[in-house]
Amino acid sequence: MKKNKKISNHIHMIFGINSASNVLQAKKLEILSIHIMISGKAEKDKLITNHINSFKSKIQKIQKNHFLSKYSGLRTQGIVIHFKGQLYKQIRDFSNTPSYYSFLILDNVEDPQNFGQIIRTAECSGINGIIIPEHNSVDITDTALQVSQGAFVHINIYKCVNINKLINDLKKQGFWIVGFENSIEAKEWHDIDYKEKIALVFGSEGRGVRKKVIENCDFLATIPMQGKISSLNVSASISAVLFERLRQLR
Amino acid sequence: MKKNKKISNHIHMIFGINSASNVLQAKKLEILSIHIMISGKAEKDKLITNHINSFKSKIQKIQKNHFLSKYSGLRTQGIVIHFKGQLYKQIRDFSNTPSYYSFLILDNVEDPQNFGQIIRTAECSGINGIIIPEHNSVDITDTALQVSQGAFVHINIYKCVNINKLINDLKKQGFWIVGFENSIEAKEWHDIDYKEKIALVFGSEGRGVRKKVIENCDFLATIPMQGKISSLNVSASISAVLFERLRQLR
Repeated sequence: MKKNKKISNHIHMIFGINSASNVLQAKKLEILSIHIMISGKAEKDKLITNHINSFKSKIQKIQKNHFLSKYSGLRTQGIVIHFKGQLYKQIRDFSNTPSYYSFLILDNVEDPQNFGQIIRTAECSGINGIIIPEHNSVDITDTALQVSQGAFVHINIYKCVNINKLINDLKKQGFWIVGFENSIEAKEWHDIDYKEKIALVFGSEGRGVRKKVIENCDFLATIPMQGKISSLNVSASISAVLFERLRQLR
Repeated sequence: MKKNKKISNHIHMIFGINSASNVLQAKKLEILSIHIMISGKAEKDKLITNHINSFKSKIQKIQKNHFLSKYSGLRTQGIVIHFKGQLYKQIRDFSNTPSYYSFLILDNVEDPQNFGQIIRTAECSGINGIIIPEHNSVDITDTALQVSQGAFVHINIYKCVNINKLINDLKKQGFWIVGFENSIEAKEWHDIDYKEKIALVFGSEGRGVRKKVIENCDFLATIPMQGKISSLNVSASISAVLFERLRQLR
């Protein structure tokens, strides 16, 4: 609770037309300022102009030289937004969710770049939420927000105190739990039936999912490596699995 | 030819145990120096010690303070290698390749971070080569090498002068060409038969594959987006497609 409170007071920054457009459309965020570069790309872009009317008092048009020196090194496309907001949702009871409802659980994932990519991929593949533990985990940093290209606005992200307790709760609410881990007992990723209420648990490529969490899974699955380097980036593994799920659902 | 020559004289740097281990095992690279931090992680790691014997004259053991200040900000794990070498292979005739032989063709992909991830994913999924055009393309930068985690050593990377000429050659050599593009004519990605000699053409999320190249493809395919943000990162799309190919082959 404390942690959530801290986060909601944090001022976040996001830039670029796609990201900014998604943030402007999210009703749940508090826009503090919208910096637009005069004669920049964003100033005339419909993705921005269509959604900016409700925030007129927050807009600051800034001369090119000043804008570029203020945000040097960033691919802003002429727009930077500062905002506050509750980025995590409160975990609730998921018993009455539809039969295809699915979560991604990230354990031991620490790289914000990966986390941002995962948020984006999860949103594009139709996953219903992402759950991270309070400890042993990446947080929603500005890097993660930026890499997600605004996807964080459209997907529910939850933080849980204890991942094994969460898994036990999800089991009682009708979810199957699949842990991704390279082990002899693991099925190949495409032999899993994803057409169920399901939670998919991934760890980082280096450390994997914690042993106690793996032991609590209903099934284990893995993607067998075909080459000589031993491991796939976690966001690439997740993409392979989430689109296999989508293939099965379609 | 000129460009290749230039590249082969360029000095590359790579760091970290996985990447270094792959570079040490690659016979085709010229190792110039191996910097090892005294009492660092790499010094005793078998992935390094097992492959370092042939390069004894190149090893420089460096005191911790000096090493850390020299390579500050990098996750070196105590090892940095400088090397030279021909990173691109010469395009040859691929008529007599096995029936599952497959290429990834990247058009308009410009981000070295993405390129590195793509190299890594392609190697892990058993693709036989990656082809990029000389123009409108990313190059094998040190960032791409680093992000690939050494995968660039184990997969053939080719550069072609003209991508449409290359596609015509590949067609004559028995390859089907699939362009990934969001269009009405596009099949869903899993409706493509990947159990053939095949070349898969991807562009960047922003600009896509150039129109002239799309027109030259045998089939178009796409991954329908399920969420509200319109586009998936190109390396995530590639991961989804390459592992669907692997699923079909297995």
